[in-house]
Amino acid sequence: MPTETERCIESLIAVFQKYSGKDGNNTKLSKTEFLSFMNTELAAFTKNQKDPGVLDRMMKKLDLNCDGQLDFQEFLNLIGGLAIACHDSFLQTSQKRI
Amino acid sequence: MPTETERCIESLIAVFQKYSGKDGNNTKLSKTEFLSFMNTELAAFTKNQKDPGVLDRMMKKLDLNCDGQLDFQEFLNLIGGLAIACHDSFLQTSQKRI
Repeated sequence: MPTETERCIESLIAVFQKYSGKDGNNTKLSKTEFLSFMNTELAAFTKNQKDPGVLDRMMKKLDLNCDGQLDFQEFLNLIGGLAIACHDSFLQTSQKRI
Repeated sequence: MPTETERCIESLIAVFQKYSGKDGNNTKLSKTEFLSFMNTELAAFTKNQKDPGVLDRMMKKLDLNCDGQLDFQEFLNLIGGLAIACHDSFLQTSQKRI
């Protein structure tokens, strides 16, 4: 049986494959695929954004090589950034409780 | 119900909290905690390494600020690196099949 960490690595790959495979190149997320990923997998985050340009700006910021698509490394930077934001907010909440 | 991506972000935080909380500072993985994490959560990877120094060298390489510990960002770089290695190997296998 896989460990929690192994399952998580598998999930990251499976989710990236799922969304990047929606059109042509299945090694990159196009802008449409990125929006589909964000509005489905991270809808709780996306629907709380009041600024309609936030996803456009995120895509631009994540697209380090400026090819208009996100490769797996760029996608992982997104997940990592969100995980760090959640982790920081968790630490702040814990510190307030003490 | 959380999506696969949300569950994965939660898992990454939970696993880091679990191992970093084993001694003193629960915002960083000490060397001992890193070894415990690798030998438990990623045992399938660790036990295949013939070189006994590989975990020492991984820890040194991941410890970007050289404080002898891994913070959450440094930990995520490890997970990201492993995910990319798995993803690349998956793509190569798929290409060979075609």
